Amino acid sequence: MKKRNLYLNVIPVEEALDSYLSVVKKRVPLKTEIIPVVQALGRVTVSAVYAKYNSPLYNSAAMDGVAVVSQKTKDACELKPLVLQKEDFLVVDTGDPVHEPFDAVIMAEDLIETDDGGLQITEPAMSWQHIRPVGEDIVAHELILTSNHKIRPMDVGVLLSGGITEIEVYKQVNVAIFATGTEIIEPDQNIADGVIIESNSRMFEGLVAEQGAKPFRLGILQDDYALIRDNVREACEKFDVVIVNAGSSAGTEDFTVHVLRELGEVFVHGVAIKPGKPVILAMVGDKPVVGLPGYPVSAYVCYQNFVRPLLNHLQNFAEENRETVRAFLSKRLVSSLKHKEYVRVKVGKVDDKIIATPLARGAGAAMSLVRADGFCIIEQNQEGLDAGDSVTVELCRSLKEIENTVVSIGSHDLMLDILADMLPNKYKNMYLSSSHVGSLAGLMALKRGEAHMAPIHLLDEESGIYNIPMIKKLFTGGCRQMALIKGVKRVQGFIVPKGNPENISAMSDVARCRYINRQSGAGTRVLFDYLLRKNGISCEQVNGYDKEAATHMAVAALVQSGAVDCGMGIESAARAMNLDFVPVGFEEYDFAIERNNLDLPHVKAFIDVLKSEDFKQKVMRLGGYEFSACGEIVSVS
Amino acid sequence: MKKRNLYLNVIPVEEALDSYLSVVKKRVPLKTEIIPVVQALGRVTVSAVYAKYNSPLYNSAAMDGVAVVSQKTKDACELKPLVLQKEDFLVVDTGDPVHEPFDAVIMAEDLIETDDGGLQITEPAMSWQHIRPVGEDIVAHELILTSNHKIRPMDVGVLLSGGITEIEVYKQVNVAIFATGTEIIEPDQNIADGVIIESNSRMFEGLVAEQGAKPFRLGILQDDYALIRDNVREACEKFDVVIVNAGSSAGTEDFTVHVLRELGEVFVHGVAIKPGKPVILAMVGDKPVVGLPGYPVSAYVCYQNFVRPLLNHLQNFAEENRETVRAFLSKRLVSSLKHKEYVRVKVGKVDDKIIATPLARGAGAAMSLVRADGFCIIEQNQEGLDAGDSVTVELCRSLKEIENTVVSIGSHDLMLDILADMLPNKYKNMYLSSSHVGSLAGLMALKRGEAHMAPIHLLDEESGIYNIPMIKKLFTGGCRQMALIKGVKRVQGFIVPKGNPENISAMSDVARCRYINRQSGAGTRVLFDYLLRKNGISCEQVNGYDKEAATHMAVAALVQSGAVDCGMGIESAARAMNLDFVPVGFEEYDFAIERNNLDLPHVKAFIDVLKSEDFKQKVMRLGGYEFSACGEIVSVS
Repeated sequence: MKKRNLYLNVIPVEEALDSYLSVVKKRVPLKTEIIPVVQALGRVTVSAVYAKYNSPLYNSAAMDGVAVVSQKTKDACELKPLVLQKEDFLVVDTGDPVHEPFDAVIMAEDLIETDDGGLQITEPAMSWQHIRPVGEDIVAHELILTSNHKIRPMDVGVLLSGGITEIEVYKQVNVAIFATGTEIIEPDQNIADGVIIESNSRMFEGLVAEQGAKPFRLGILQDDYALIRDNVREACEKFDVVIVNAGSSAGTEDFTVHVLRELGEVFVHGVAIKPGKPVILAMVGDKPVVGLPGYPVSAYVCYQNFVRPLLNHLQNFAEENRETVRAFLSKRLVSSLKHKEYVRVKVGKVDDKIIATPLARGAGAAMSLVRADGFCIIEQNQEGLDAGDSVTVELCRSLKEIENTVVSIGSHDLMLDILADMLPNKYKNMYLSSSHVGSLAGLMALKRGEAHMAPIHLLDEESGIYNIPMIKKLFTGGCRQMALIKGVKRVQGFIVPKGNPENISAMSDVARCRYINRQSGAGTRVLFDYLLRKNGISCEQVNGYDKEAATHMAVAALVQSGAVDCGMGIESAARAMNLDFVPVGFEEYDFAIERNNLDLPHVKAFIDVLKSEDFKQKVMRLGGYEFSACGEIVSVS
Repeated sequence: MKKRNLYLNVIPVEEALDSYLSVVKKRVPLKTEIIPVVQALGRVTVSAVYAKYNSPLYNSAAMDGVAVVSQKTKDACELKPLVLQKEDFLVVDTGDPVHEPFDAVIMAEDLIETDDGGLQITEPAMSWQHIRPVGEDIVAHELILTSNHKIRPMDVGVLLSGGITEIEVYKQVNVAIFATGTEIIEPDQNIADGVIIESNSRMFEGLVAEQGAKPFRLGILQDDYALIRDNVREACEKFDVVIVNAGSSAGTEDFTVHVLRELGEVFVHGVAIKPGKPVILAMVGDKPVVGLPGYPVSAYVCYQNFVRPLLNHLQNFAEENRETVRAFLSKRLVSSLKHKEYVRVKVGKVDDKIIATPLARGAGAAMSLVRADGFCIIEQNQEGLDAGDSVTVELCRSLKEIENTVVSIGSHDLMLDILADMLPNKYKNMYLSSSHVGSLAGLMALKRGEAHMAPIHLLDEESGIYNIPMIKKLFTGGCRQMALIKGVKRVQGFIVPKGNPENISAMSDVARCRYINRQSGAGTRVLFDYLLRKNGISCEQVNGYDKEAATHMAVAALVQSGAVDCGMGIESAARAMNLDFVPVGFEEYDFAIERNNLDLPHVKAFIDVLKSEDFKQKVMRLGGYEFSACGEIVSVS
């Protein structure tokens, strides 16, 4: 085997960051520049800024009207109005200067024009009335902004009014970004076996730009030691910070750490963080270089933990405060003392309780970043958290949105995507969040009060009735009044490759092929087990009974890849993947819900969308659905 | 007099906005465009986006190691290790494809190389072990983003991984911005009598850019009807939205409304909002045109209330949620039923209570926007709020910062600016917020629990002692233990024009000139009154006794402008404005504080800065100070 960097020196996150930043602080002077104030939005002041001019620059009219000498108006009253002649007043608009001998302004509304061009007034003007004294807003030499102040739109306005046209600010940091890997292709290139579409560097571009720094994506480098070395060296000459993506681990072609050891000094290689362990923190000359891991979630977590504070330091930005919320954890989370862990969670509000439900924990689960409402951080000194534990969640979605979200946990169907898309379109600020754990697990979550509804399709073998018997069984004797929002009837069957090469037409055919099963508790698994028993087939006879996929689409993807010959699922999933489908029969896919929750405004909106013609049209196009009772409420008692 | 648009048709804010937006919704179709995903950060999706490819694209290694056929490893155990020969394995790095016959990956860490190039293992590999199945992260045809989703960095990454390279999003809105006014000059032009430095359009540029739209500042237009008309007409052809700043009121040269009536249709002219009444909401063809008032605070408030929702609508952005906090109001706020009012407030946390203190309410007080920690909104149906009322404040500074801020209310001195600048520089995330209301008002605020400290300089006439007698008098018999943080000795005297043309040298000279006084309760006013009595001069003898300025600098600015001949103040203010100064004597400027609060970390930091050599150096440069006891704590009992 080729040489690997097997032993990473793993140190705690805070220790890694602190020691690296202290090196950076020592070796990298913060750069400043003097720029026009009109270009300074979002930049940070180097020193305190004092006004150069007064604002207003002179005593000026605060109203539209006329400037007068107050002394000359002192006899005016309702009974004995006074008429000002042309030489007694000067017409002024707001902002016009008022000079001696004038010392007051009378508002236009309080003036009556006389035929000879005079103005009649019925009360005296007080000295200084409706006059803005010089410097009322800003006094010359007054402090406008302190040092270390991030410049906002109103600051720009006041700086200009105060006579400041140029300002010293910290320089915007230029960040070079390299993607490395021989297997990596640009998104517009043709896909082929063994390639990976490059996407991390584009995520970094966005993160860097959002932080007010300037990203320069310098493309993809093949896994070639000299090529990477020469490019990184050149970038270190031209840019303030260099990010090298992937090649940071211990694989045979992970050159990054070797390159950085040759070019400069590696301070950290390997941090106790999950996901994200193989991060590299280095310096080449006076330029910080960070090697980020290749898995997208690792890349994201490491960016946030190491690159973000680095760029904030170099631009002298304060750390952003993320909105956090205390939530109850819906599942047990086991974590190791070996690392600090970032768990992506869905957050929902059910029965006045904020609930956090962990999403997929894999480092490659980029979709979990998109789906996440926030991060639950398990510190390195915690072995994990129990279900029901109160945890702090860093939100990436506002609490207000979360409070207006229908939380659905249960079986997966493609129509949930359509509902999630339609709900906020039809009802502003109302959302659907759905987690796919299978029917039974959904009902259990509903019972624990973690969801508003559970989409289920559970056959009662004895009665042949769907869903209602299982709800009755699980919610017996409780004080909870349950109901069912009727969904759709949908066709279940075997998803098989195009042309059905294994010629599968009945349960007996399944035994002779490579099968992919669904997870225990999924309605489809319950149906499959029922059909096995009915046909007298044992689990052991099914090749692949123990291989589990989590959704219909995952089953279809595996069939399409050729890894398996067949799996049970819904017709729409087969169609979406352009596969063939062998129907087994209709089943009922409904939403179990506590009756109380039917009155929630977002649940009402959900039902309304479910009943809409538009929704049915869209689902119809997926294939394999029937809508006879869609949106009806059935009481379960 | 020239024609004025005297009668604005004033309608409530929400009504004005709703009726205008409903016109816009009818007449302006939302524009969309298809752009590369890599440029889509911050843009909003038009329709739901579904994945095109699986990710990973194939079954792939989840670890660095070797791919094996699990079946062939089933006999490996600790006691009887198995050696895999070259034909039994394939070296794989994370992400490499794993094809048949291989169906499992063994991690590099679990392998021992043998001398002949074989690999020894001590446990069997399970089928699918360390393999990421095709589509594990993203399944083709799965929903990636719903419609109306604002694209974040991680979304860009997942879209590319899912095979999406182009995306339909709402168009960025181009906003033309005109400043109008014959008196208006660019900030780099020479100032002269009667000019106003143009700054609002620069604030709008920043606000527009922060909202993700594109500002185009088209310069300053003179008050010329035809010029404004032709420019606005042309802009309406090229841009999506046009902002015309000022000329929106009822002055003689306020052409905006007339121009817009000629070019299109004016829906609203005059809204019940303070500040900001003279706003214009119009359409020219299918282009929204907004006339914003000229006073900077009015301009800001109207932008936030009308332009922000307009641009959000046109780009299909959700309204931002501002952080809010419940706070106790420190002062009574009288407001009219005629309008909704936006009051800028300072917010501080004192004794576990969040306190909101109103800032200057004038429409021209742009510095109040810079100084504000938030806005307290008085709805139109409220006549006002009492001191102690609980109010909601929309924050423009984070609550965390506010909680780390020393709240100082009292007398003004230039050294407070220096302290405010130095504190966060020396102690990260600690701040000083100071409001200038005069010594007595400061002590009253301290007594009501609205401030941590009150900077004061109050002479006790009987004893000739500064500050301590007044604190004793005000805090008698209470349970509050008070202390004094010693500040500086500073020179008070008469601020006079350069060369002292009125030849002022004693109190008796003041009676014969135009004087500017300080507000009642200010330490300087107390001193002046004391000196008047001592010299047998009555208030009536002082020309200008009733004219009040709020700070030393404001006094200096008025002297400099020639509006007055003389005012009492500190030497540093005279020096800053390059004026002459006639000293009267030293006074003691200290900080009254409750003893309990001396232990607060931010108060400790404050005292530390006060004691620092650096601070003294900086204040020394202002002139007229002495530091013998600076930072010492004196118990008042």
